[in-house]
Amino acid sequence: MSSENHQVRLAERPVGLPGPEVWQHTTEAVPEPGEGRFVVRISHISLDPAMRGWMNAGRSYVPPVEIGEVMRALAAGEVVASAHQDFAVGDVVSGTFGVQDYAESDGRGVQKITPTADVPIETYLAVLGMTGMTAYFGLFDVGALREGETVVVSGAAGAVGSVVGQLAKLKGCRVVGIAGGPEKCAWITDELGFDAAIDYRAEDVKKALRAAAPDGVDVYFDNVGGEILDIALTRIRRGARVVICGSISNYNATEVPPGPKNYMSLLVNRARMEGFVVFDFVDRYAEAGRAMAGWLAEGRLHSREDVVDGSVDDFGDVLLRLFRGENTGKLVLRLAR
Amino acid sequence: MSSENHQVRLAERPVGLPGPEVWQHTTEAVPEPGEGRFVVRISHISLDPAMRGWMNAGRSYVPPVEIGEVMRALAAGEVVASAHQDFAVGDVVSGTFGVQDYAESDGRGVQKITPTADVPIETYLAVLGMTGMTAYFGLFDVGALREGETVVVSGAAGAVGSVVGQLAKLKGCRVVGIAGGPEKCAWITDELGFDAAIDYRAEDVKKALRAAAPDGVDVYFDNVGGEILDIALTRIRRGARVVICGSISNYNATEVPPGPKNYMSLLVNRARMEGFVVFDFVDRYAEAGRAMAGWLAEGRLHSREDVVDGSVDDFGDVLLRLFRGENTGKLVLRLAR
Repeated sequence: MSSENHQVRLAERPVGLPGPEVWQHTTEAVPEPGEGRFVVRISHISLDPAMRGWMNAGRSYVPPVEIGEVMRALAAGEVVASAHQDFAVGDVVSGTFGVQDYAESDGRGVQKITPTADVPIETYLAVLGMTGMTAYFGLFDVGALREGETVVVSGAAGAVGSVVGQLAKLKGCRVVGIAGGPEKCAWITDELGFDAAIDYRAEDVKKALRAAAPDGVDVYFDNVGGEILDIALTRIRRGARVVICGSISNYNATEVPPGPKNYMSLLVNRARMEGFVVFDFVDRYAEAGRAMAGWLAEGRLHSREDVVDGSVDDFGDVLLRLFRGENTGKLVLRLAR
Repeated sequence: MSSENHQVRLAERPVGLPGPEVWQHTTEAVPEPGEGRFVVRISHISLDPAMRGWMNAGRSYVPPVEIGEVMRALAAGEVVASAHQDFAVGDVVSGTFGVQDYAESDGRGVQKITPTADVPIETYLAVLGMTGMTAYFGLFDVGALREGETVVVSGAAGAVGSVVGQLAKLKGCRVVGIAGGPEKCAWITDELGFDAAIDYRAEDVKKALRAAAPDGVDVYFDNVGGEILDIALTRIRRGARVVICGSISNYNATEVPPGPKNYMSLLVNRARMEGFVVFDFVDRYAEAGRAMAGWLAEGRLHSREDVVDGSVDDFGDVLLRLFRGENTGKLVLRLAR
C-alpha cells in the first residue's frame, strides 16, 4: 500500500469548459481509518456530466463542491484498512469517494459490489451503478413508459442514453436515438438494437425525426437540452412525457442558454416535462439493480464502458472528453498503479 | 326577430396584434333551422386569449379558423326557432356559436343554462363556463393541488386567474397573484382574498415573489408565459407543478418568443411543467359546475364579468382590450339590439 494519496481539488469555479486552471493537485498521506470508518483504495472513477453542475456555486440538488475541496466523484475500489464492523479489508465497494487515490468513509452511501470476469468493476459504475439507476427510474417512473410506445433519447450513445434505449426496447417500444457521429449511430442500431439513429452532426434533426418517428413521440428522454430538445417538442404526441435528465449542451455555456421556445407544445399536446434526481429513488436501487443484473446476465442488456487508463492527474483531461462527446458508453478513469 | 345576421369572419391571418384588417363583416339572412337543428339569437360573446391561437394556421388542439369562416367564439343566447326535439324556443343556451347575431346548431356541445337575477347569463361564460372549468381542472387535476400549499397565479385578475386564486383559497392555500396595475392588485387581495398581489408593471417581480412566497412555490399556474414564467421557475419548490394554461404575453409576438431559460429548475426541484386543454375534461364538467355553483351561491366564490355593450362589429376592438390587459375578470361582449 502506497503511502501517498494523490487528490484533485477544485481550485476555482470554471467559466465555460473547465480547463487545467480549475484543478489543484495535492498529495497527502494515505488516511488511517478512524473508529467506525474504513479506507478504500480507489481503482475506478466515474465521469458524469452532472459533475459540471457540482462545480458551480449556488443552490442545486446537492451542495456545490467547495473551492479547495476534493472533487466529488462516484468511484469504486477495495477496502484496504477498516475499523468499521460492516466493511472488511478486501471488500470491493462503490460510493462517492472523490477524485483521489484513497478515500476514508463511514460507509454511508457505500455499496459492496461483487465484480466477476463477466461483470467487471467498471460495470458497477455503469449499468449497475447510478448510470443504470438513472436510466431505469427516469424511463419507467418519470417517463411512465408503456409498452409499444415511441421513445426518443438524446445523448443516445452516452452512458445513460444507451441504457434508456435498451430498456425501452426490452419493453417492446420503438426507439430512436440521437447521437453524434456515424460510429455512435452504428453502435446503437447495430449492437444495441435501436430502431433508428439520428446523427445530429450530419443530419437535419427535425427532418430525420419526422422520418424516424412519423406518428410522433410518446417519451422524449433528454440528456442534452438546447436545440434538440426544442425539435423534440415539436414532435411529441398527445399525453407525451418529456423526461429532463440533463442538458449537457448547456453545461459549459458562458451565458444563460435559451430555453425551449416550443414549450407550448406541452399545452397543445397535453404533455408534461418533468425533471428528476436519481438519489430520490434510493429505496428502490435494489429492485432496479436486480432487474438490470438479470437482463445483463441474459444478454438482453449491454453495458459498454469507455475505460481510460491513467492517474487522478488525468481526471481533468478525461472529463473534457465527456463534454466534447468523445466517449461512447460510460466514461471511466481506471487508476493505474 | 330581425331578419339580418351580422357576422364577423376572419379575412386574413394576423401578424402580431389583430388589427381591423383581419376582420370581414358580413350580413346574411337569419338562418331557418333545418331538421334536428335550432337557431340561437346570441346575446353574449365570450372573449378569450385562446382566440388568438385559433386565428393562426397550423396544427393545434383545435383546427384553425379558416379564412372566410365566422370567427369561433363561445357565446350564449336564446333559442328563437327550433326543429330539434331537445331544444325549444325560449331555452337559454351556451355553446361555440361564433361571432355573429344568430347561429344555427345541431345541439352538439350546447348546454342549457338557467340564468337568474343573482347568476346572470354572463356568469355562464365566466365562472360557470369554460373559464371556470379551466381554472377548476387546471388547478385541481393538472396542478394536483394539496391543502396548505403555496400557489402563484399569473394573469391573476383575468378570467381564469381570478378563479384559480379563489379556488386555491377555498382549499386553504397561500395564494399570490401577479397582475398589472394597482386596481387589479387591490381587487384580488381586497375582494377575492388573495394573500398577496404583485404588480408586474410596477414591481421587481423576482424580489416581490421572494418576499411573498419566501418558502417557494408548490403550484405555479401560468397564463402569461414569458419573463414571469422564467421568474416563477426560479422559485419553485421540490415536487412543484407548473401548470401551463396559456402564454398571453407571447400570443401576438411577431417572432418566436424565447422559451423558459430556467427550465432546468424542473430537474433540480424534481418538478413538472404540464399543459392541458379543458375540453379533455368534458365528462366532468357537470361535477365542476355543481361545485362552482355551490360556492357561488354560498358567496365563497365571486364571478366578475367585464361586460362591454356593443354589436358584433365591435368584436375586434374588444378583443384588443384583452391583449392589452385592460379587462378585469371575464371580458364579455353583450350584444345590444
